[in-house]
Amino acid sequence: MDRKAGKGKVVVIGMGPGEIDQMTIEAYRAIEESDVIAGYHVYVDLVRDRFPDKKIITTAMRREEERCALALQEAENGADVAFVCSGDAGVYGMAGLIYEMAQDYPSVEIQVIPGVTAALSGAARLGAPLIHDFALISLSDLMTPWEKIEKRLRMAAEGDFAIVLYNPSSRKRADYLQKACDILLEVLSPDQVCGTVRNIGREGEVTRICTLAELRDVQVDMFTTVFVGNQSTRRIGDRMVTPRGYARERQAADSK
Amino acid sequence: MDRKAGKGKVVVIGMGPGEIDQMTIEAYRAIEESDVIAGYHVYVDLVRDRFPDKKIITTAMRREEERCALALQEAENGADVAFVCSGDAGVYGMAGLIYEMAQDYPSVEIQVIPGVTAALSGAARLGAPLIHDFALISLSDLMTPWEKIEKRLRMAAEGDFAIVLYNPSSRKRADYLQKACDILLEVLSPDQVCGTVRNIGREGEVTRICTLAELRDVQVDMFTTVFVGNQSTRRIGDRMVTPRGYARERQAADSK
Repeated sequence: MDRKAGKGKVVVIGMGPGEIDQMTIEAYRAIEESDVIAGYHVYVDLVRDRFPDKKIITTAMRREEERCALALQEAENGADVAFVCSGDAGVYGMAGLIYEMAQDYPSVEIQVIPGVTAALSGAARLGAPLIHDFALISLSDLMTPWEKIEKRLRMAAEGDFAIVLYNPSSRKRADYLQKACDILLEVLSPDQVCGTVRNIGREGEVTRICTLAELRDVQVDMFTTVFVGNQSTRRIGDRMVTPRGYARERQAADSK
Repeated sequence: MDRKAGKGKVVVIGMGPGEIDQMTIEAYRAIEESDVIAGYHVYVDLVRDRFPDKKIITTAMRREEERCALALQEAENGADVAFVCSGDAGVYGMAGLIYEMAQDYPSVEIQVIPGVTAALSGAARLGAPLIHDFALISLSDLMTPWEKIEKRLRMAAEGDFAIVLYNPSSRKRADYLQKACDILLEVLSPDQVCGTVRNIGREGEVTRICTLAELRDVQVDMFTTVFVGNQSTRRIGDRMVTPRGYARERQAADSK
């Protein structure tokens, strides 16, 4: 690296759901202009063939701290590091941890380039479930007490938000979606329109539309994103659509 | 149009915050491959110079019904229509209305290409405020009763969600952000970290970090997106960062 030390930066990049063309033009260019690509190996593998000359830094799953530290050290030594995340780096992603840890690397500039998170890419596959107010809730209790997750599920249901569930299941948490549905069913109708998308934008993508009562017994995994409609959401053919209120306006226009 | 009638489609495209390179590669290609570009003139103007050969369909603000009908008619006649929206077409965008109206155009295929909504692009500018669960709420009561908006504000605050406010103000609703803050202040601390971004990703972009008490008296307009942190959100330098819980893990690692 022949750059002057202390002039490097870490650009935290949301790559979107997976395929290269689902990232923004700005995100692609930032990788192109970087010296180093860092990230969880699954995401780095999506782009490394396009950029054979870049230095690559990967660490295993759950080694987020180490990965961030390595990226910050490279930047401290003068490199421009593209730190890649799936979806959006600012939604359950690494942007927060990078900012926290960057306090120990005051010479390093941090920049975040947003990407399409699974709520948006999954919604596009299901139709238009998130047209109005919605809430994102992760069911992972790895770093959040389950009581807090339960409370958020209740509040989101009481507020008639459309709801997107991230991390709905894992091997150790096989019944978490069922538990979440039971809480939602205390408030919402069993007929509320719901949907799931597995492997959004990747090979083997599967979408499903069902009722909240049915969702309770759907088998999901960590590659699935779950959508619960609000009271106005309805099924149109094989799509899940939440109106914004235009129906009223439309009716008025039609009756002219 | 020399295509066979009945084979057209409407591709509803989220363009992201504004500049061309903030849209996904997939979105750009879909415009490139279309015969017609439709949309609100402000958004169409962002891309029309790049595609001088395309037929253009625009209508004025508030003429969403008419704009969708024209796009669907073009597709029914065999054209591929790129229907462009700012941000994400599925978040307070046109994807829902297109699906609703498309019921009257059964031969037309509908596809949605997601984009970076203001919650994500604004968050990237402010730091990392949306790292954990969050809720999106529009303060526009044009098509939603204000009581419903109030309820959602209360539930989001009770659930300790980070909150993003869309449409925080307009000429007719100059005091809506103040009203919203007063409701949030019934539940949240006046010191809760908040942020605003105006003209995200466009010329004249302005970011601001403040407390919830200060936010109450900030002047905002319809080009501003407002962020309210959750209980864990803190200010790091000039950034707003919500931890995911890694701090605990980090401390454990440091003490080894």
